[in-house]
Amino acid sequence: MSELKQQKCEACQADAPKVSDDELKALMREIPEWVPQSRDGVLQLEREFKFKNFKKAWAFHGKVAQLAEDEFHHPTLTLEWGKLTVTWWTHAIGGLHKNDFIMAAKTDALLAEME
Amino acid sequence: MSELKQQKCEACQADAPKVSDDELKALMREIPEWVPQSRDGVLQLEREFKFKNFKKAWAFHGKVAQLAEDEFHHPTLTLEWGKLTVTWWTHAIGGLHKNDFIMAAKTDALLAEME
Repeated sequence: MSELKQQKCEACQADAPKVSDDELKALMREIPEWVPQSRDGVLQLEREFKFKNFKKAWAFHGKVAQLAEDEFHHPTLTLEWGKLTVTWWTHAIGGLHKNDFIMAAKTDALLAEME
Repeated sequence: MSELKQQKCEACQADAPKVSDDELKALMREIPEWVPQSRDGVLQLEREFKFKNFKKAWAFHGKVAQLAEDEFHHPTLTLEWGKLTVTWWTHAIGGLHKNDFIMAAKTDALLAEME
């Protein structure tokens, strides 16, 4: 299997399968910096990225927003002074699809490019 | 008194005064779309801006982020598909300073420019 970050998101319908508990465990090993969070019963992947100032956090925000447009899968991006919080989940299924893990891995890869 | 949106933020120290209840009432009349929210005991100003898609919300995000850098007063900006939530408060005083109302009014003015 190719690395998550090299995979593409597939079109996702309301009847697409959520990841199973076993898949979740296996996929989390590939994105160890991310935290699965349940909000209003919806499982999401979240990671906080810290930066030296607002401008650097904003620059990273731009890269993640462009990735979201390119893959047409959109996270919640919370920008604050020196911090960007990225939250991925799949609205259509109210939880986590493999796409979200792919996007999380691609987000990590964008950070690696910046550093 | 000039309109809020035409005023500049002043440098804000930890001993700067929070707005009083009376000032809050008067200032809210100038930014009626904003909602005062208390989070962990910290009063904040929040407004949700809805857009047709991610790209338009992102474009507005860029304008508000640039305003924040220009005035060197930074909000929390939460970007989602079709929505930007802007939250202003003054970290140094753990609440609302007049600066936050100025920034809220300037945010409204940026929206008016876009439309």
